[in-house]
Amino acid sequence: MEQYEEVLDRVLSILVEGNLSKNQQAPVTEIAKTIPVGISNRHAHLSRADIDSLFGKGYELTKLKDLSQPGQYACKECVTICGPKGVLEKIRVLGPARPVSQIEILQGDTFKLGIKGELRLSGDLNGTSGATMIGPKGSVQLTQGVIVAQRHIHMLPEEAKHFGVVDGEQVSIEFDGPRGGVLNNVIIRATANSGLECHIDTEEANALGVTSSTRIDILK
Amino acid sequence: MEQYEEVLDRVLSILVEGNLSKNQQAPVTEIAKTIPVGISNRHAHLSRADIDSLFGKGYELTKLKDLSQPGQYACKECVTICGPKGVLEKIRVLGPARPVSQIEILQGDTFKLGIKGELRLSGDLNGTSGATMIGPKGSVQLTQGVIVAQRHIHMLPEEAKHFGVVDGEQVSIEFDGPRGGVLNNVIIRATANSGLECHIDTEEANALGVTSSTRIDILK
Repeated sequence: MEQYEEVLDRVLSILVEGNLSKNQQAPVTEIAKTIPVGISNRHAHLSRADIDSLFGKGYELTKLKDLSQPGQYACKECVTICGPKGVLEKIRVLGPARPVSQIEILQGDTFKLGIKGELRLSGDLNGTSGATMIGPKGSVQLTQGVIVAQRHIHMLPEEAKHFGVVDGEQVSIEFDGPRGGVLNNVIIRATANSGLECHIDTEEANALGVTSSTRIDILK
Repeated sequence: MEQYEEVLDRVLSILVEGNLSKNQQAPVTEIAKTIPVGISNRHAHLSRADIDSLFGKGYELTKLKDLSQPGQYACKECVTICGPKGVLEKIRVLGPARPVSQIEILQGDTFKLGIKGELRLSGDLNGTSGATMIGPKGSVQLTQGVIVAQRHIHMLPEEAKHFGVVDGEQVSIEFDGPRGGVLNNVIIRATANSGLECHIDTEEANALGVTSSTRIDILK
């Protein structure tokens, strides 16, 4: 029954798309269902031990600004990431420290570094590529931890209920505009202490003409 | 009637998508309808006068390899592109010379250069940003000519007929895979002396998980 409703939803959205201009599209649904978009550039989450190695024993990261996810922040500190073929400089460190270091890069960076970029959700690091991180006080050779982030939507469990989705579900999201389109396989991450935001990276944002003021619809 | 068939096609493709695995998807339709994808990185087309200014009077570009569009080729030569905020080095020159110089960059490059990136088809340069080009023998200040290429599909008029599209029409194209999705507003360029190929840029390719072996379907 649920599948039938999904198909019906998609058929209806196509019919609406075919008969109405962008500006005429069901405004009520749009207000009820749009989600802000956060555009992620390359960044690194560091473990306490790796902060010690890169910036000095006991070094404390300096908060630059809070991010949309509660407790997460961008730091003043940057690191250099090295692969067998090239280097990425000025990679922003995000805080606070995590149990394990994780570097999130763009698909385009994988060619520059000369490493494979596994498409993964944050924290799912088994079997991913490694790289060398360089800081002002030393370097760390990661055996794994480099990922290309899989697009996802953070929300509270009650927001998931409102949107009719569940944690771990894959949905599609739609963008208007001259570079408009649909991105599939966007993972719902419905957890307590989340800020409602869809996370895509800069290549995805540029390809779809997305800016920081863009809001998206979930297409189930 | 044609519209009805289009809707039916899309409904059918959704039903097929929902019930069959990727490998089982209607092979006959796929063979008949898929189009190879060419991924464009940043590049420059130069006028004869600008080749003279950048590389020396009467300089002839050196062909490196032929491109998919008949008569077009990548050259050994590169130029540097400068904007008010930054520089792009090693921008590949494509030959042969054109009546007017045109620089095609990525949306992400526009932030680096500090210029506006108008989304345009090749040749549609009125009102676009300028930039300074630097070569081994001199520089040229373009007052306009910098674009972000609008995605498009080159084909012969008879191929357009086969695909049921016309020159100038905007279509959507679909990609499978973990970063799959749909890109809208892809312009059909149906002209004599064309090679069948869908042109997207590296940001679009990376966002959708596209490689040089990817083939796409037209969704009308």
